[in-house]
Amino acid sequence: MERPRHQGMAKNTYMRWRLPLVCLLWEVAMIILFGVFVRFGPEADAHWEEEKHEMNLTSDIENDFYFRYPSFQDVHVMIFVGFGFLMTFLKRYGFGAVGFNFLLAAFGIQWALLMQGWFHSFQNGKILIGVENLINADFCVGSVCVAFGAILGKTSPIQLLVMTLFQVTLFAVNEYILLNLLHVKDAGGSMTIHTFGAYFGLTVTRVLYRPNLEQSKDKQGSVYHSDLFAMIGTLYLWMYWPSFNSAISEHGDAQHRAAINTYCSLAACVLTTMAFSSMLQKKGKLDMVHIQNATLAGGVAVGTSAEMMLTPYGSLIVGFICGIVSTVGYVYLTPVLESRLHIQDTCGIHNLHGMPGLIGGIVGAITAAAATEDVYGKEGFIKAFDFTGSYKTRTPSVQGGFQAAGIFVSLLMAFAGGALVGAILKLPIWGDAADENCFEDGIYWEVPEDEESDVYHMHNPDKPASP
Amino acid sequence: MERPRHQGMAKNTYMRWRLPLVCLLWEVAMIILFGVFVRFGPEADAHWEEEKHEMNLTSDIENDFYFRYPSFQDVHVMIFVGFGFLMTFLKRYGFGAVGFNFLLAAFGIQWALLMQGWFHSFQNGKILIGVENLINADFCVGSVCVAFGAILGKTSPIQLLVMTLFQVTLFAVNEYILLNLLHVKDAGGSMTIHTFGAYFGLTVTRVLYRPNLEQSKDKQGSVYHSDLFAMIGTLYLWMYWPSFNSAISEHGDAQHRAAINTYCSLAACVLTTMAFSSMLQKKGKLDMVHIQNATLAGGVAVGTSAEMMLTPYGSLIVGFICGIVSTVGYVYLTPVLESRLHIQDTCGIHNLHGMPGLIGGIVGAITAAAATEDVYGKEGFIKAFDFTGSYKTRTPSVQGGFQAAGIFVSLLMAFAGGALVGAILKLPIWGDAADENCFEDGIYWEVPEDEESDVYHMHNPDKPASP
Amino acid sequence: MERPRHQGMAKNTYMRWRLPLVCLLWEVAMIILFGVFVRFGPEADAHWEEEKHEMNLTSDIENDFYFRYPSFQDVHVMIFVGFGFLMTFLKRYGFGAVGFNFLLAAFGIQWALLMQGWFHSFQNGKILIGVENLINADFCVGSVCVAFGAILGKTSPIQLLVMTLFQVTLFAVNEYILLNLLHVKDAGGSMTIHTFGAYFGLTVTRVLYRPNLEQSKDKQGSVYHSDLFAMIGTLYLWMYWPSFNSAISEHGDAQHRAAINTYCSLAACVLTTMAFSSMLQKKGKLDMVHIQNATLAGGVAVGTSAEMMLTPYGSLIVGFICGIVSTVGYVYLTPVLESRLHIQDTCGIHNLHGMPGLIGGIVGAITAAAATEDVYGKEGFIKAFDFTGSYKTRTPSVQGGFQAAGIFVSLLMAFAGGALVGAILKLPIWGDAADENCFEDGIYWEVPEDEESDVYHMHNPDKPASP
Repeated sequence: MERPRHQGMAKNTYMRWRLPLVCLLWEVAMIILFGVFVRFGPEADAHWEEEKHEMNLTSDIENDFYFRYPSFQDVHVMIFVGFGFLMTFLKRYGFGAVGFNFLLAAFGIQWALLMQGWFHSFQNGKILIGVENLINADFCVGSVCVAFGAILGKTSPIQLLVMTLFQVTLFAVNEYILLNLLHVKDAGGSMTIHTFGAYFGLTVTRVLYRPNLEQSKDKQGSVYHSDLFAMIGTLYLWMYWPSFNSAISEHGDAQHRAAINTYCSLAACVLTTMAFSSMLQKKGKLDMVHIQNATLAGGVAVGTSAEMMLTPYGSLIVGFICGIVSTVGYVYLTPVLESRLHIQDTCGIHNLHGMPGLIGGIVGAITAAAATEDVYGKEGFIKAFDFTGSYKTRTPSVQGGFQAAGIFVSLLMAFAGGALVGAILKLPIWGDAADENCFEDGIYWEVPEDEESDVYHMHNPDKPASP
Repeated sequence: MERPRHQGMAKNTYMRWRLPLVCLLWEVAMIILFGVFVRFGPEADAHWEEEKHEMNLTSDIENDFYFRYPSFQDVHVMIFVGFGFLMTFLKRYGFGAVGFNFLLAAFGIQWALLMQGWFHSFQNGKILIGVENLINADFCVGSVCVAFGAILGKTSPIQLLVMTLFQVTLFAVNEYILLNLLHVKDAGGSMTIHTFGAYFGLTVTRVLYRPNLEQSKDKQGSVYHSDLFAMIGTLYLWMYWPSFNSAISEHGDAQHRAAINTYCSLAACVLTTMAFSSMLQKKGKLDMVHIQNATLAGGVAVGTSAEMMLTPYGSLIVGFICGIVSTVGYVYLTPVLESRLHIQDTCGIHNLHGMPGLIGGIVGAITAAAATEDVYGKEGFIKAFDFTGSYKTRTPSVQGGFQAAGIFVSLLMAFAGGALVGAILKLPIWGDAADENCFEDGIYWEVPEDEESDVYHMHNPDKPASP
Repeated sequence: MERPRHQGMAKNTYMRWRLPLVCLLWEVAMIILFGVFVRFGPEADAHWEEEKHEMNLTSDIENDFYFRYPSFQDVHVMIFVGFGFLMTFLKRYGFGAVGFNFLLAAFGIQWALLMQGWFHSFQNGKILIGVENLINADFCVGSVCVAFGAILGKTSPIQLLVMTLFQVTLFAVNEYILLNLLHVKDAGGSMTIHTFGAYFGLTVTRVLYRPNLEQSKDKQGSVYHSDLFAMIGTLYLWMYWPSFNSAISEHGDAQHRAAINTYCSLAACVLTTMAFSSMLQKKGKLDMVHIQNATLAGGVAVGTSAEMMLTPYGSLIVGFICGIVSTVGYVYLTPVLESRLHIQDTCGIHNLHGMPGLIGGIVGAITAAAATEDVYGKEGFIKAFDFTGSYKTRTPSVQGGFQAAGIFVSLLMAFAGGALVGAILKLPIWGDAADENCFEDGIYWEVPEDEESDVYHMHNPDKPASP
């Protein structure tokens, strides 16, 4: 049967006035809000030249820019190339994967600068931004990219922008509760980014359940080269994850340590992923879905504890476990989630971000609870957990308890927020595609007329290319 | 009609002796000139160990290498992967896009080290180079990559090398006039790189006008995967542009500020590009050409002002406008330029670098003219515009005037230089392809016999691929 | 004739129990060994907060992390994306290229941390690791990636893991002999990484000689897009090579100098590669194999001398020569190696790493022998060659002699080790593929059913997609 393409859609996916309107209005709002609130932080302001003297800084290299900018750029690559290309595995949704990820992230970082700024960088009525704010904005958007993975191919760009607006807001609230009220450590965001992002996205896709999605089942697979494009995303996420988990850690040993822990966890994760990918398949062959995703679970799962004294072998153990959990999830859990719970998780974010995020939160709680002055040193102990001011008397075991509480708060925010946002996205005004047109770029994109087929066949016997 | 391929060319595109001759002779020339002139700068020379003591530097981290090397590498990626892959969008010119960009840039950086060295780093008969020279050489070549975009697919590698030789020379002269004689600020090169590069390239392509180019119109499009390859280029340019605009700014707050301004401008630009791409199309669908290019215009347009106190919302406004201008340019201006002015601009560099470059120059002039000691601080003000020595008494409004003058000088150099170089390239000795063979890798490259078609169809013995 | 695919294999390539067993057992071994031996180095340990005071460090920026982390990330990209994608040029071995490279490198870095740690970072029964160890582990694995290039497409993943285990071990021994016993300088690893890795791999592939490999000759070529994927690898290797060669050089001028020398050498190499690629071909067309590989030879060949006062023009000369040697090697030597010596070198590593590595060792020996206090400065001279302690009285010419000895030791280790490992890999228990199934992902990977052909032809009404 010939597939219906570009025609006969049951739903109105016409974007011409809706998408521009949303984009332009929101960007104008950003400009106004930035105009009212956002200014350069002290280290990015031209006054720094004078402040340097006051602060007795002897060198420009003390500017936070030089501590964090390389990590920032790595994180930036993860958000735009990493997540973007990871999702190009679908045979006919590459434009949507890279392009919509680009759109939502570009909007999201602006809104995150504001939301996080109000909570964390607000002074005298102004949000003062520096390189650390840029990293945090990218982090926040990371959680939206995670959620995007669950609904990939099934939503219109407007829905994605609406989701981004709400999710960034909720992220900032959740982050504030965790970091400021619970005084929880979560440098690489196992809880704030991955757990929250994954269960938020899963709830959204549950609400948006499409019972007849198998109509586009043939488009949910990959082709040879789309799998290679996806590996670009995988590798950049994998390689730069040490930068991700160390990007906003304290200067010095904490950044150094976070990078090493993440490096170790990710390395171990690759081996167990390969092992279980082969083992769980009758023919014993490796599955690109696992290699593209489960190899990254180790990075997610040391997100909370990477800057702590997890130790290299501790990291190996975490990575070891997560490669297994994640791969097993792809093979056994994802089908069940769809058939029983009606959760259609396009990229399997539950396996890559959900479960590993939870593990990360738990590992963080345990590592914090097990901390001793002996292991960290007297000063290092205080610095690592910021046991100063009103937290001066907090003990490691109490800290562990608060860490655990952070997991539950994140889950709660994710479920409640996801349900709310899912309900909003269900309104029939956003231009999402009919079931049979899901996972198909042609709905929202001008797609080249695939003269590739000409090219490929120009040597065709009855049509000689070169006579 | 069947396409003529690899044969029946009206022109002699045989490269066997000409290309090797040019490459080898020029590289020998580079070696000789480097041998006579180029030495390590003080911070890369083994004598630095002693100089450090004399300069009372307490730490190796004060070496300029640590201030600039991460930015250098990002810029390097932009030149080779960014520009190279951005141009792979053509269905059958991917080898030429990446490969010729590689060739011209590899030659260009050597020649730029010399040309810029003579103007800026010449001491006691020697050019002393360090990491900042490497960045500047990459910048200079960036302007050649821009111009390459206009003539992509229509020139031989020899023509590209000839153009690089001349354009790098003219770039260095123009840069010297702007930075040293006019004392203009242009950290990210809105004028020196983008305005100059774009109008130079447009003039060259005008001179090389091919009236019958529509013969290869079918090859001027993209295929699905070539558009994804191009997105690799787009995203690396977009992500690393903050490094580009901050790479040679003053240490400290200026670098920090330049990165933030660029980040903001680019984010805004994505939203207006998406909005207008959808709006200007009857079917309301997004066009990959716009997403691949116009999203970058915001980076071009804050090239001059990024290190100034443009402020984050100022950057958003610039990005907002440039996304619109650039997308509108692709839809309405490019066809007119071709039909009326006979300017055949393969990649639409007028929309990505030309107009945004001009806007960038103007924004820079305004921002400079509006500078006050109040905004910059007393010391910061002097440092930002280098109002020292013979420029001690220059006022912001005068600086703004000189900035504006810089735009006109760059345009003048571009038009005059482009006309001259275009005339040289028109000589019938460089081996360019006939009109019907443009945009076709097979002319200059060994192209695999596309057994891909076999692979795809090897299971269908009785089914010819296209009836 | 229809090709036999996925069936009728003469050999048992079933991986289901063997591969998981090896992966899991080895990862458990890593965890145990890390648990016993590996701890954070002082700069990554929380005690650093206190140590800082003792060492009178005034700033966190003095942590080695900030000197080396950006370079580390660049090296990391080279190993995983650079080598991984460089090898995707084969039309149907992209999964194996990227995926197996990922597997062996992820295992290799763990084992390298241990092996190199025992030799170089062992204190009080513990291996203390920091960012420099991570770089060194990546370097060590780099030599395995090199060797992988020779046997690409002809070995099972288990064979690759076995080879990695042995090669990393031998690498560490060879490195110890060179750096510690011979006191040789080899910052970028011309000898330890490239010479050793290449001749090791060539010996292995010689032992594993497959007389009937021409049965899969049709799969040893590329297709259009696989060549573009490979260019991603090429460009990342090319761009980041300055980071590779400078990553573990002394802080300050040495790192700075190594980056500049490598930048120059690589630039020159591109031009001579292009020249000879065109010259050695009757039709005068450029060959992607040369552009993908020979352009990198310049980086290999300044690996030893990059941190010395090679000077920019010296680097150009080295790059100039290596582009020629490498390209000539591809055209004339590789076929001879296969037909006469029965060395089947899939990626031509002899041309990219073997000969340039030897040249690099020789250039290093000469540059060291020619060193004078005049050129380096009194302190710089001692620092550059570490002529302290028991090496206080070593002269440059003696150093040159030892450098030369290092080449021979590396070759010896490569031949002996390669023969041993080749013999082990020849055992019929590792699940390698039959000759006619080499270079074919379908043996070890779930490959998508290539519905791409459907997609391409879905507009052909009279041809149902799957019969």
